[in-house]
Amino acid sequence: MSESVVITDRDNALFEAGIKLGALYHQFTGSPINLGTVDSLEQAISQSISVQPFVEDITVLIDRDMVRSNLNDEFGYCELEGRMLDVRICILYGDVRVRVALEYDSELEYPLMRIESVE
Amino acid sequence: MSESVVITDRDNALFEAGIKLGALYHQFTGSPINLGTVDSLEQAISQSISVQPFVEDITVLIDRDMVRSNLNDEFGYCELEGRMLDVRICILYGDVRVRVALEYDSELEYPLMRIESVE
Amino acid sequence: MSESVVITDRDNALFEAGIKLGALYHQFTGSPINLGTVDSLEQAISQSISVQPFVEDITVLIDRDMVRSNLNDEFGYCELEGRMLDVRICILYGDVRVRVALEYDSELEYPLMRIESVE
Amino acid sequence: MSESVVITDRDNALFEAGIKLGALYHQFTGSPINLGTVDSLEQAISQSISVQPFVEDITVLIDRDMVRSNLNDEFGYCELEGRMLDVRICILYGDVRVRVALEYDSELEYPLMRIESVE
Repeated sequence: MSESVVITDRDNALFEAGIKLGALYHQFTGSPINLGTVDSLEQAISQSISVQPFVEDITVLIDRDMVRSNLNDEFGYCELEGRMLDVRICILYGDVRVRVALEYDSELEYPLMRIESVE
Repeated sequence: MSESVVITDRDNALFEAGIKLGALYHQFTGSPINLGTVDSLEQAISQSISVQPFVEDITVLIDRDMVRSNLNDEFGYCELEGRMLDVRICILYGDVRVRVALEYDSELEYPLMRIESVE
Repeated sequence: MSESVVITDRDNALFEAGIKLGALYHQFTGSPINLGTVDSLEQAISQSISVQPFVEDITVLIDRDMVRSNLNDEFGYCELEGRMLDVRICILYGDVRVRVALEYDSELEYPLMRIESVE
Repeated sequence: MSESVVITDRDNALFEAGIKLGALYHQFTGSPINLGTVDSLEQAISQSISVQPFVEDITVLIDRDMVRSNLNDEFGYCELEGRMLDVRICILYGDVRVRVALEYDSELEYPLMRIESVE
């Protein structure tokens, strides 16, 4: 018989980590970018998500090669796509620190979110 | 010394649950709505998030009273805000089922995401 | 010497038409979809934008073939992309009716927004 | 009898101006911010929209007082709302230059988009 169990700091740390990646992805993908503006978008995404609860550290990298190859010939820009993002977030909830990542998985052809470590 | 530990189905279930709530929130808040269109937006949000991995069930309710009181006098519509949302999601990862919720916390004045149960 | 000129209903009609297409595009692209949920997303987008000022009529079509070919093999869904959208909006401002469209231009490889008519 | 008329550079300039404001609004509202991150978000929004076609100039200001008064007591951040934005965009299409703005109208309680000038 299933029964609800006590919810731990570890549970909450992982839940919060997921919230941040889902939020980041759906807030910022679709933003117009080119190679001259990618720095400012990286910084804004990183700073924006860093203000959310329990975020200890975050790094956001946008793949310049993918941006370059996606630039529209006529208009010279493209949109930020999920597969261009390499994001690492460290969440601290109570004493539990979890590290999660968003990275393009070329085999699955999918911008995969995954748990890297729980400490 | 901290050391990385084995990542369990429970960890992944909670991580995935967080991803869905973060995604839902930042994809759909800001959508124009009035009382005549709130049904279709509820259904679209619910169906949209239901196609993501590991979602077993989802219900999305938008608070009609908040919509009504937010309607602009001149233009007769408002935007979907996070505090209008009452969302319940059930995630199944391996054998672990977790239930999470997004609900406005009037004391914190915050659209709070929380873990309801782990089974 | 340049000089500011009187702003007409026609000017405002075209300005409002642009606002609606830009809003629609950046609000809803990125939404998770599959072939079973595309109907509800079409309807929600159409109804959502219809509540904005000066919208007389709107039709939203999502290209099923593009959705089908974009479905991820592992996870069975994809995201709504701008190039999947065929949108027609009719704006009425004062006595001026303008029709605008968003449609994928395969030659430009670009989801092109354009003015169809001014009446 | 209504009849379609020739579409001018002026028409296109105003249409393009609307697209940019609608896009900006629905792409970036909802972003988490506090007073320490508002600079980077202003810059990223401005640079992002500047890469779109026909944008000659853009300035984006986020109202610090509104951010301050919206900060959540418990969590110390808020979301970017449309009414916090003061945006000026100059569009050049052919020989026609139009200036448009997004600014909170406190009487209408509405983030109003309007045409400032056509030259």
